[in-house]
Amino acid sequence: MTVTAPAGFIAAGGFGQVKKEGLDLSLVIAEDGPVAAAGIFTRNTAAAAPVLLSRRRLRGGRAQAVVINSGCANAGTGESGIEDAERITNRLAALLTVDPEMVLMCSTGPIGSRLPVDSMLSALPGLVADATPGGGERAAAAILTTDTRPKTVVVSGDGFLVGGMAKGAAMIRPDLATMLCFLTTDAQADPAALHEALAAATPTTFNSLNVDGCESTNDSVILLASGRGPRVSQAGLTEAVEEACGRLAQQMAADAEGASRVVTLLISGANDDDGARRLGRSIADSSLVRSSFYGGDPNWGRILAVLGSNRVDPGGVRISYAGVLVADRGVGRPFDDQELDKRLTGDFMVEVEVGSGPGRARIITTDLTPEYVRFNGERS
Amino acid sequence: MTVTAPAGFIAAGGFGQVKKEGLDLSLVIAEDGPVAAAGIFTRNTAAAAPVLLSRRRLRGGRAQAVVINSGCANAGTGESGIEDAERITNRLAALLTVDPEMVLMCSTGPIGSRLPVDSMLSALPGLVADATPGGGERAAAAILTTDTRPKTVVVSGDGFLVGGMAKGAAMIRPDLATMLCFLTTDAQADPAALHEALAAATPTTFNSLNVDGCESTNDSVILLASGRGPRVSQAGLTEAVEEACGRLAQQMAADAEGASRVVTLLISGANDDDGARRLGRSIADSSLVRSSFYGGDPNWGRILAVLGSNRVDPGGVRISYAGVLVADRGVGRPFDDQELDKRLTGDFMVEVEVGSGPGRARIITTDLTPEYVRFNGERS
Repeated sequence: MTVTAPAGFIAAGGFGQVKKEGLDLSLVIAEDGPVAAAGIFTRNTAAAAPVLLSRRRLRGGRAQAVVINSGCANAGTGESGIEDAERITNRLAALLTVDPEMVLMCSTGPIGSRLPVDSMLSALPGLVADATPGGGERAAAAILTTDTRPKTVVVSGDGFLVGGMAKGAAMIRPDLATMLCFLTTDAQADPAALHEALAAATPTTFNSLNVDGCESTNDSVILLASGRGPRVSQAGLTEAVEEACGRLAQQMAADAEGASRVVTLLISGANDDDGARRLGRSIADSSLVRSSFYGGDPNWGRILAVLGSNRVDPGGVRISYAGVLVADRGVGRPFDDQELDKRLTGDFMVEVEVGSGPGRARIITTDLTPEYVRFNGERS
Repeated sequence: MTVTAPAGFIAAGGFGQVKKEGLDLSLVIAEDGPVAAAGIFTRNTAAAAPVLLSRRRLRGGRAQAVVINSGCANAGTGESGIEDAERITNRLAALLTVDPEMVLMCSTGPIGSRLPVDSMLSALPGLVADATPGGGERAAAAILTTDTRPKTVVVSGDGFLVGGMAKGAAMIRPDLATMLCFLTTDAQADPAALHEALAAATPTTFNSLNVDGCESTNDSVILLASGRGPRVSQAGLTEAVEEACGRLAQQMAADAEGASRVVTLLISGANDDDGARRLGRSIADSSLVRSSFYGGDPNWGRILAVLGSNRVDPGGVRISYAGVLVADRGVGRPFDDQELDKRLTGDFMVEVEVGSGPGRARIITTDLTPEYVRFNGERS
């Protein structure tokens, strides 16, 4: 179970002819009517129509339903795109007999084409009828694009649950592919508390994925609280939300388009955590570094070069691959090549010490593979 | 002819066992003794030993010779690396009976290993003996690493010549591979004039290659003036140097590692030229955009998304591929798919208007190919 694990939510997945086949429409509904809600959205100025609509509607801190389509981003579509999103959410509101302001929408897929509104409208009544407490898995499947498998999570807090589903595949910054995440909880919490939990959870989870989470045209993280469970502390809520986001982020990395392995970068010794995160992202942005991850090559020189281009003093740099120290004070050290070869099969960890400051960060990235390029070079 | 085209220079290429085979040592000598010289070097704080040495020695504005090795960057080598570079340049100075301060050194290749100093020292006397006015081509061949062909140029100014040779292959920012360029002229010019010409030429040439020229550990551009020709105006000198750098940059792009085509981005409408250059680089940094270039896919949505993540108002964005307008005011426009397909074979141009400001830039980049990743994933 995913978003339907916490009490008070039903969900469904269906087909609205946005894609050629398969599931492309997903629905999450709070059974008791409008509930407390919060969202974090992309800061991209070319934000998609559904982002503009949902961000505006969430200002009131309440929502009853979210409809999500995969197969079309509804971005780069101007005023017409907004009208399309309004037509769909208005129809859903009528079916639920609720104010349209209580209905949110998210979209993911290629940028630049219009939604097939008529076929989507035709599919809505069936989708609403299908929504049940058992519909979470189908809802999680319907939001996927190039993902190879659904990403779902359930976290138990102190007397409450947080459930979630997410999608995100070609997601290595600055690649700007869409990351969507929908979370539900049965906890009692007001919109401000929900927002605080999301704001605390994203930097260390989705934004540490080297996704720079909120930068594609469509990135959205939405959290609804049914309030059927107990009133919870902010700390307890934040911890559960962060745990849920962290597990979803890990699933996204493992399923990144064309990636053959997940590499975790542990940066330490920066002036502060933000500085550490910036350096980690800069390393993970280098095509040369990520190509060397693909080959399982402990090419610390490429990491040193990235650090140097960020004005780091090489004299304070230590680099270890899979626990084996390969460079100290910016200079290479002898290491057991065969032993390291063995450790660099599959996923691995690279520790990068950049000085003696207290700043630390953990960045999850993947290798860059020939498959990635082939895949993203295809005409959409 | 290349660096030996202008009167007063001799050159040679040889083998010092830095690589396993082929040419790996290159030498350029001013025949009349120390001459006016200037250089522009990487700002990388992990700059290679030869960069530290040459930058320091060029403070006096004079030099007689440059020795270049390929096959080893002599970066990430600490104090020992500096000593290695000093031993080599000191021996060359002794062979030329000149102050060691007049001898410069550049290196290119993998980061982290020491130079094979003894074999290089043994090769130096032969290299000096081989240096002739006809040695320019061999010198240009000896500086190459993964380049598939030498890059050379000769530009005629008003009564003077500028000759040059360069290397640079895996060079798409932020990939941080090394770009080396050596220029000679027979013009009479003082070191300050030479420096001004280089400083004016690099932003519009090498730094528009999406190399961010001076950011690898080893990037170096060096210009020597023999003074055998006429005294020249600053404008005339700058123009000839810029023309030479521009032609070398174009050759580098065409020979970029694993690239199948060169794509020229013309950015206009930014607040200023710097802003336009930043946006152009940001587009050329996106693996998703460059993968779409590989497929000849006019995927303007990915470009729009990059612009939006740089806070550009999509309402002012127009994008054309090969002269065909595909998006206007941030919204897609219908276009003749078959006609555009025909135009997107081979190299092409993408015009991106980002607003109504006067800022313009021209960025030369390449597509991202499966071959690139395969190549850079190999253990070095």
